[in-house]
Amino acid sequence: MVDLRPVLFVLGILLATLAAAMLVPAVVEAAHGGPDWGVFVLSAGVTLFVGIGLFLANRTAGASALNLRQAFVLTTLTWMVIGAFASLPFMLSQLQLDFTDAVFETVSGITTTGSTVIPDLDAASPGILLWRAVLQWMGGIGIIAMAVAILPILQVGGMQIFRTESSDKSEKIKPRIQQIAGTILKVYLTLSIACAAVLVVLGMPVFDAVCHAMASVATGGFSTQDASVGHFRTPGIEWAIALFMFLGGTTFVGMAQVAQGAPRALLADSQFRWYCIYIAAFVAMVTLWQVASEGRGLFDALRSSTFNVVSIATTTGFVSEDYTLWGPLPIAAFFFLTFIGGCTGSTAGGLKVFRFCILGSVAGKQLRQLVHPHAVALPSFNRRPISDDIVRSVLGFFCLYGMSFALLTLGLGACGLDIVTSLSSAAQALGNVGPGLGQIVGPAGTFATLPIAAKWLLSAGMLLGRLELLTVLVLFTPRFWRR
Amino acid sequence: MVDLRPVLFVLGILLATLAAAMLVPAVVEAAHGGPDWGVFVLSAGVTLFVGIGLFLANRTAGASALNLRQAFVLTTLTWMVIGAFASLPFMLSQLQLDFTDAVFETVSGITTTGSTVIPDLDAASPGILLWRAVLQWMGGIGIIAMAVAILPILQVGGMQIFRTESSDKSEKIKPRIQQIAGTILKVYLTLSIACAAVLVVLGMPVFDAVCHAMASVATGGFSTQDASVGHFRTPGIEWAIALFMFLGGTTFVGMAQVAQGAPRALLADSQFRWYCIYIAAFVAMVTLWQVASEGRGLFDALRSSTFNVVSIATTTGFVSEDYTLWGPLPIAAFFFLTFIGGCTGSTAGGLKVFRFCILGSVAGKQLRQLVHPHAVALPSFNRRPISDDIVRSVLGFFCLYGMSFALLTLGLGACGLDIVTSLSSAAQALGNVGPGLGQIVGPAGTFATLPIAAKWLLSAGMLLGRLELLTVLVLFTPRFWRR
Repeated sequence: MVDLRPVLFVLGILLATLAAAMLVPAVVEAAHGGPDWGVFVLSAGVTLFVGIGLFLANRTAGASALNLRQAFVLTTLTWMVIGAFASLPFMLSQLQLDFTDAVFETVSGITTTGSTVIPDLDAASPGILLWRAVLQWMGGIGIIAMAVAILPILQVGGMQIFRTESSDKSEKIKPRIQQIAGTILKVYLTLSIACAAVLVVLGMPVFDAVCHAMASVATGGFSTQDASVGHFRTPGIEWAIALFMFLGGTTFVGMAQVAQGAPRALLADSQFRWYCIYIAAFVAMVTLWQVASEGRGLFDALRSSTFNVVSIATTTGFVSEDYTLWGPLPIAAFFFLTFIGGCTGSTAGGLKVFRFCILGSVAGKQLRQLVHPHAVALPSFNRRPISDDIVRSVLGFFCLYGMSFALLTLGLGACGLDIVTSLSSAAQALGNVGPGLGQIVGPAGTFATLPIAAKWLLSAGMLLGRLELLTVLVLFTPRFWRR
Repeated sequence: MVDLRPVLFVLGILLATLAAAMLVPAVVEAAHGGPDWGVFVLSAGVTLFVGIGLFLANRTAGASALNLRQAFVLTTLTWMVIGAFASLPFMLSQLQLDFTDAVFETVSGITTTGSTVIPDLDAASPGILLWRAVLQWMGGIGIIAMAVAILPILQVGGMQIFRTESSDKSEKIKPRIQQIAGTILKVYLTLSIACAAVLVVLGMPVFDAVCHAMASVATGGFSTQDASVGHFRTPGIEWAIALFMFLGGTTFVGMAQVAQGAPRALLADSQFRWYCIYIAAFVAMVTLWQVASEGRGLFDALRSSTFNVVSIATTTGFVSEDYTLWGPLPIAAFFFLTFIGGCTGSTAGGLKVFRFCILGSVAGKQLRQLVHPHAVALPSFNRRPISDDIVRSVLGFFCLYGMSFALLTLGLGACGLDIVTSLSSAAQALGNVGPGLGQIVGPAGTFATLPIAAKWLLSAGMLLGRLELLTVLVLFTPRFWRR
């Protein structure tokens, strides 16, 4: 059996931190004279009480470092428990979301997905709107920390390619993040503040600007407006948010290196290059379609294509208009975009660009080897050969992603959702994107009217996708709990 | 450069054989007093003339064995050239299909896909109906020969796992098929005759029985009736055809071993077992749905589910009713079925069950390795460890299949097809299935009204899928033609 006490100890600390975060919307709500400030204080109290309880009850075990299995349990448990406690304000506030909707909204927030079940955001108090943004912002930095510090050591889905030499031979969690954590946090804060400032300068109200900045850098996608970013009808705002979403999907390790004065590392990174190339290709394709087939002006088409393609490619989920009205090619393009995602070590979801780099290299070498069967052609990433260990990890990851996608789609079909809604909402949940296709879950709809079972399936899908599948699935293997 | 003379020599022989095959519908048409017998004689004459020309012009090179590159060129060129000449009767007959439609129908036939552009089969002469069945039947035995004899040596997409030891170190094509070819051909003939006999006993007219038997064993799906097998409204016929489609999707090497008195080899084969398991799982799921959600009787639901699931799983494409009216879960199930396919070494298309076995083994070992990072857990197939070479081949194959699927879908979207039609018809073309989803390409529709560009894209997709992608794609690499 796995000794859970050190896990619960850490969880206690995290819950206490969550309680502190709840005081931010409480203060803002009180300052706005909103009705829900007491709700946040109450939620913070409950969360703090449980957090301190867990902390005190397990403090004897607290000093020991986590082993591998405890790290797996902690990772999944953290996101589930925080998802549960962070949903309290949604249930208690004037919105009075039921348990299902509150958990869905919270999970969609912390996984930086951005699907919402609130059909009328005008009815939400400022505190609730801010809380949604804070959840995404915390979820964003949380996933960067996890991708940089924990997943490479857990060897999840080929992530071991990002291990440093020092952590190579250890099963204990010696966070590589310590070396670079401060800079990454600074980059995250700087981008968030810069985004908010730029949006204010471009004419967005301060409150909206802060919320949109947090949701942009976290590639989350929760807006303060029902029409999302389209509400503001300002080209400059769309360009600015597109830029910060793009940066949010960029590897933060690379951006930290840029901040430390070494920009070459980022520019030479295969993953970053292909991230730029694939987004540019989709923008070009959708722009051309809009000009040629819909007769839009080039600059107008370029702006709307850039904003919405970057939004879906970085798995943010902001929309500036209903792109499902643009015709069949863009719809197909947006469907495939939900699978690719951003760089690893960013706030973006999806399969991640580095896995496609490895896949592409393997496929290219295969074609080469067909002509020269006896020349051994090893796949490479960033000009280094990839070990077969990594290739198997990546293959296994694609397999589990595909199976999860198929099972989730079938489950949603069993809930009665039509094929386009099932396929696209399964894909967007696993990729932490936000909008799907079709009238219900599409860019112009909300998830409010889905059946309860579908909401739980999608919540599970969002967590599964965010935690790179294996982190969760390994807990369901009997072997994990043995000995 | 590649010396094409031996390739053209073999092609000449194959065209002469095709010309001989054209005389079968000519005779049947004449016997029925149909209008098109002269068309088949004329087409046979043209084909024979070109075939003999190629044979004579290249006979000096004919004696030499083919090298690897010539084998690649021959494989792709054979299917293209036969597709072109076999389409002559469609253009010349009273149906007067245009060039696009004739090529589409022919390619759909020889790749055993079964998509049709003929909206009214009653207007087709008996000769044309028989020719469609003959094309599928020849395509079926052709693909078995290719999968057993050629692809393993070309090392296409992990097929090298099926190489015998003797062919291991040779770049020359020493067909393994010679050892077992006779038995496989006997099995193919026996199944075809048995199927036709059973169908006649069950009350199907002899002509329809022969055509349906050929299209069943070849997992092709061309029917003589617009309503496909549903036309006959006979449960026994549906069960019988389901059985023969299932056998058509079973590895013919295994069935040949059964015929040689060694049934254990087939029953112990992982691929065959998972082929049975996955089909049974989908039948159970769709049956349960029909009983629980649609209120159908259990036996009625079991029959209709079995027939249509087996038809799509084996990539045949016969339909007994419009299963897209059964509701969202079956629709999603039929969509995913178009990707899986049958066993390798069968007439079925799709990604093939053995690739999913390898994928599943790799994924399972990954989950295991997460808990024990230092225990090396190699994936296996049929209780033997799989070399990393194979794992890379399979990964590369999935990558190219996914990319082909995405590009084909985007291309069809650019032709103006809606998202369900684009996704499902791209999937069914690559998997050589037949029907897609939606009103146009669904089980109740035909491909007749698609734009011309879409028909060419789908024809290319069918050939690409049938030839396991790599065989075709390698011809587009500059390296192939160098030196």
